[in-house]
Amino acid sequence: MASEHEAMWRELGLDLAAHDQLLQVLGDGYGQIFLSQQERPEGMEYFNFVMSEVHGLRIKELVDGKAEGKKVIGSFCVFVPEEIVVAADATLVGLCTGADFATELVDQVLPRNTCALIKSAFGFKLGKVCPYMESADMIVGENTCDGKKKSYETLGTLVPNLYVMDLPQVKSSEGRALLAAEYERFKQAVEELTGKEITAERLAHGIQVVNAKREALHRLYKLRAADPAPISGLDALLINQVSFYDDPVRFTQSVHKICDELEARIAAGQGVAPQGTPRLLFSGCPMAVPNWKLPWVVESSGAVVVGEESCVGERGTRNLTEPQGQDLASMMDAIVERYWKIDCAVFTPNPDRQEHVKQMAADYKAQGVIHYGLQFCQPYQMEALPLEKNLEAGGLPVLRVDTDYGMEDVEQLKTRVEAFLEMLA
Amino acid sequence: MASEHEAMWRELGLDLAAHDQLLQVLGDGYGQIFLSQQERPEGMEYFNFVMSEVHGLRIKELVDGKAEGKKVIGSFCVFVPEEIVVAADATLVGLCTGADFATELVDQVLPRNTCALIKSAFGFKLGKVCPYMESADMIVGENTCDGKKKSYETLGTLVPNLYVMDLPQVKSSEGRALLAAEYERFKQAVEELTGKEITAERLAHGIQVVNAKREALHRLYKLRAADPAPISGLDALLINQVSFYDDPVRFTQSVHKICDELEARIAAGQGVAPQGTPRLLFSGCPMAVPNWKLPWVVESSGAVVVGEESCVGERGTRNLTEPQGQDLASMMDAIVERYWKIDCAVFTPNPDRQEHVKQMAADYKAQGVIHYGLQFCQPYQMEALPLEKNLEAGGLPVLRVDTDYGMEDVEQLKTRVEAFLEMLA
Repeated sequence: MASEHEAMWRELGLDLAAHDQLLQVLGDGYGQIFLSQQERPEGMEYFNFVMSEVHGLRIKELVDGKAEGKKVIGSFCVFVPEEIVVAADATLVGLCTGADFATELVDQVLPRNTCALIKSAFGFKLGKVCPYMESADMIVGENTCDGKKKSYETLGTLVPNLYVMDLPQVKSSEGRALLAAEYERFKQAVEELTGKEITAERLAHGIQVVNAKREALHRLYKLRAADPAPISGLDALLINQVSFYDDPVRFTQSVHKICDELEARIAAGQGVAPQGTPRLLFSGCPMAVPNWKLPWVVESSGAVVVGEESCVGERGTRNLTEPQGQDLASMMDAIVERYWKIDCAVFTPNPDRQEHVKQMAADYKAQGVIHYGLQFCQPYQMEALPLEKNLEAGGLPVLRVDTDYGMEDVEQLKTRVEAFLEMLA
Repeated sequence: MASEHEAMWRELGLDLAAHDQLLQVLGDGYGQIFLSQQERPEGMEYFNFVMSEVHGLRIKELVDGKAEGKKVIGSFCVFVPEEIVVAADATLVGLCTGADFATELVDQVLPRNTCALIKSAFGFKLGKVCPYMESADMIVGENTCDGKKKSYETLGTLVPNLYVMDLPQVKSSEGRALLAAEYERFKQAVEELTGKEITAERLAHGIQVVNAKREALHRLYKLRAADPAPISGLDALLINQVSFYDDPVRFTQSVHKICDELEARIAAGQGVAPQGTPRLLFSGCPMAVPNWKLPWVVESSGAVVVGEESCVGERGTRNLTEPQGQDLASMMDAIVERYWKIDCAVFTPNPDRQEHVKQMAADYKAQGVIHYGLQFCQPYQMEALPLEKNLEAGGLPVLRVDTDYGMEDVEQLKTRVEAFLEMLA
C-alpha cells in the first residue's frame, strides 16, 4: 500500500513502522496465496483491489465520511444487526483479527488458553495496527463465548467506546425477549451516537441494503454447486471476508458482476479445477482476513472448497430479514427473528447447525467436511465431536482440524488433508 | 470402605473393580494428606467418618430414602437452589469430580482443551464409579461456562435424566427475569419428580434448613480469623466439600460442634500452626473432593489457608435467603435474590467478586492471595489478570496458579509457593 495514506494512519494513532511491516506481510501472503491461483475469474480484480486498499482507500472513505458526520461502528460478530447501523446512515465494519500480532503484549492481558481470534484482536489493538478499530466511533462487543464475554472487560479498559451487547444462550421465549430488548437498546445507542432517529423509512432502507448484500452472496453460493467449480474456495472466502469491510452497495454490485461471469463459465463448462476434483465443505469457526491457512492447504492439495458453514460464510448470511409489516415494530421484530435463527455454537442445544451442514453438503455436492476449530474455542470444539459422529453416520466423512493462526503446523495439516483426500477417492 | 456395600454398588451399576481402585486411592490420599496433620480438632473425627463412608453409608442412606420415595437430585453448581429441593423432601447432592478417571474414554467425547472439572465428571460417569450420579433421580446441569453448557449436550446422551437450567450472563433486569423464570420452572420440575407440591410451609422449611447450614459455615469462617488459626485450610475445605454430600441437618450440627471446640481453642491460644504463620487466601475455581493438591502443597510449605473465595467456600455460601413475607411468591423471590448475588465469573461484568476477595483478605488477615485457576476454565482465568492487578495495587500480593488434577506439577507448585511465601516474609 502506498505511503499516500501515512498522514491518515498517523492521525489515527497507528504505529507506522509496525503497520508497514504488517502490510508487507499481508501483501506478500496475498500474492503467494491468491494471485498465484489458476483460472481465476476476472471479477476477482475488484476484490484484489479492495484487499490492496483495505487499510488505505477504504479507511480514507470512512475517515472522509466521519468528517461529514457519518459514524463508524466496529464489531466482532454477526449478531450485530447491520440493518440498524445502515438505517442510521452509519457504517458497520469488522474489526481486525486473523493474524498473530504483538503477542508479547497480548500475553500480559489475556490467558494463554485464549483462542487465536480474541488474542489477535487484542494484538491489533495493543500493537496499534488496526485502522478500523482506531477509526470506529463505537466498538460493539457481544456476550457470545466465555472468551469474548470476559475479554471485553479488559478491552473496555483499552478503548474509550466499547458497547457490550448481551446475548441469550438458549432459544427459549426468555432468550428471544432478551435479544429483542438488546436490539432495542442497540437501536437507541446507535440513534444517540449518530444523532439520527431510526424511522420506519430509514429502517426499511437498512433492511433492503443488507438483504441485497445477502442475496448477492446467496447467488454466489449456489453457483459453487457446479462441477467443475467456477470459483475457488479461497476466492469465495475472500468475498465473504470483504463483505465485512466494503461499502455494502458497491460490494453487492461487485458480487453480482462476478456471478454473471461465473454463470457464463458454468455454461461453458469452465472451472478453477477439472471436473471431478474432490469437493470439500468447511464447517466451524470463522476465518477472518488474513487467516487463509486452511483453505490454502486444502486447495493446494488438489481439492476445491465449495462452501463455508461459518460466520464468515453461510452461518452469517443465510437468512434474510423479512418484515410482516412496514411499521417500525414489525421491522424490529423481523430483525430479531432473522438473527434469532443464527445457529451459533454458543446456543444450547443447537441442532439446526447439524442440519445446515448436511444441507450444504448435499446442495454443493461435497464429498467430505473439514471441521475447522480454533484452538481453545470451546463452543465449536465441543460441537465438533457430536457433529462428526452425526455426519459420518450419514456417510459424510469428516476431518476435524484444531489449529490457530501460526504457520508451524502447515506441513502437518497438508499431510492430514492429503490423507483425508485419499480416503475420499 | 467395607465390602458390605458391594451389593448396593452392583445394583447401582458401578464398575466394582474400578470403584475399589478409586476408593483405595482416595483412602490412601486422605490418610496421607488429612490424617497426618498436627493438632487437628477432635471434631474432625465426624468428617473423617463421613469421608470414609462417602460412597458407602451415605449412599445407603440415599438408596434407603429412595425406597421410601425420597428423591435424589444431583448437581454440579451452586446455582441449583437447595431450598427448593429440600422443600420437596428430596436430597440435593454434589456429583463426583475432582480426580482424573477413565481419561481415555473422556477423550473420545470431549475436546482436550476442556477443564479438569468437566473431564473428571465425565470420567466418573463413563468409568461407572460415581454412586451419586447413579443414584440420582434427576441430574441438573446449568448454563454457566461454555464448557459445562456445551458438554451437557453430550452428558444428556449418557444419562436418562438430565435437566438443564439456563442462566443469565449479565445482571440486568432481563437477566434477573430469566433466573426467576428458570427457578419457577425448576420448582415445577422438582414437584413433578417428587409428586410433592411445594407449599409456602414446605418452602419455609427448605429455606430454614439451608440457611442454618450456611450460618454454621459462617460461624466456622469467622473463627478462622484467629491467629493462631484454630483449624487448617485443608480441614476447613473438607468441611465445605462435605456440605455438598451430607445430610444438611446433621452437617449443620456437626459444624456447630467443631465450632464450639474451635472457640475453646482460640480462647486457649491454641492453633494448628504457630502464631505468625503466613496466612493465605484462596480465590478462584472450586476444589471438589478429592482435589486437595494445592492446599496440601501450601500447608506443607509452612503457610495456613484462612479462607476460600470459591464455590466450594464462601462464594457458594455467603448469602442467606431472606424472604420479606411468608407467602410462596415472596419466598421464591427471596431465593432468586439470594442466588442472583453469587459473584460467579460467568457474569460480565463481575466487580463484586473483587470486593469480596478484598473483604475476605481483610477479615481473615491474609497476607497474600493464591488465585486458583483450573486449566481451560476461561471465566476464572480471564478474571485472574485484572483481579491480580487490582489486589496488588492495594498491597495484597497474588500468586496466580493454573493447574489441573494431575500430580505432575506438585514439585513445581511447591517451589512457586515457597518463593511466594519468602516474598511475603
